[in-house]
Amino acid sequence: MNLKDYIRDIPDFPQPGILFRDITPLLRNPAAFNHTIDRLAEKYRDWPLDAIVAIESRGFIFGAPLACRLNKPLVPVRKEGKLPGDTISSEYFLEYGSNTVEMHKGDVGPGDRVVVIDDLLATGGTLAAAANLVEESGGEVSGMGLIIELEDLGGRNVLGAYEVFSLIQY
Amino acid sequence: MNLKDYIRDIPDFPQPGILFRDITPLLRNPAAFNHTIDRLAEKYRDWPLDAIVAIESRGFIFGAPLACRLNKPLVPVRKEGKLPGDTISSEYFLEYGSNTVEMHKGDVGPGDRVVVIDDLLATGGTLAAAANLVEESGGEVSGMGLIIELEDLGGRNVLGAYEVFSLIQY
Repeated sequence: MNLKDYIRDIPDFPQPGILFRDITPLLRNPAAFNHTIDRLAEKYRDWPLDAIVAIESRGFIFGAPLACRLNKPLVPVRKEGKLPGDTISSEYFLEYGSNTVEMHKGDVGPGDRVVVIDDLLATGGTLAAAANLVEESGGEVSGMGLIIELEDLGGRNVLGAYEVFSLIQY
Repeated sequence: MNLKDYIRDIPDFPQPGILFRDITPLLRNPAAFNHTIDRLAEKYRDWPLDAIVAIESRGFIFGAPLACRLNKPLVPVRKEGKLPGDTISSEYFLEYGSNTVEMHKGDVGPGDRVVVIDDLLATGGTLAAAANLVEESGGEVSGMGLIIELEDLGGRNVLGAYEVFSLIQY
């Protein structure tokens, strides 16, 4: 199955000049969506893995079924102010301004081996910030799993310290 | 298994006087998380169901594994401006101000029977707005599935026209 067949190109979103890769056709096709989760499960089944960190919000769509399938804890990384308990936070910088992501204190423990899941690798800023949260908690990022990788944006270089796996490349 | 054991109470979040029911301990326990999805799958396995609509963002955490498990299309309902394609939108009113949710045009078709999944039933505003989107698309809401229902807030009355199912009640 060629997963690219289920990605729709949408020009000029979220701003003029950006070609957005839309995963919603993949989600609407149960065979394609299950195949996506199967491929991730195959990759991480015998992996050093104590918890799956999923990044809000499209990361939840792939991280949650994977955590169920592999029977591993699911840890959400969310935008600032969304997690109700005590959190640690990590800021990352965009072309203009910055964003902050948070994780609950104690959701990742010392020595935990963690795979970070998101839908898309672009510049790598969000994934690097999520990795910071894992490491600040004493955990270790044993892998990063993405559905789509936009190779021209060089995110893989930013994340050079990590094992990066993607299912679809542009 | 008593799922309530995996819900953590956090006082004064997101504002003073509110007791927040935190699902993250449930997500961190693979047996409890899989039991949650099992219970939803059992409920909806032989249900009139052509698609699962999951509401951003905690609804994704439960709707996505359920869609995988039942082999059904997953349709995201998201906050305004997040979906890249042509959308329809529905506004709902809060104590102060309003919110808008959106769905891609064509993700639900005429006659489609849809189960709407979210983590929490409080006042029912978001779920009613999601139901509007389904109905505006010509679909029919055959059920609403929640992890937690806050009974005192009367959401079930607001959603009187629908079959509402929750796993945990307060």
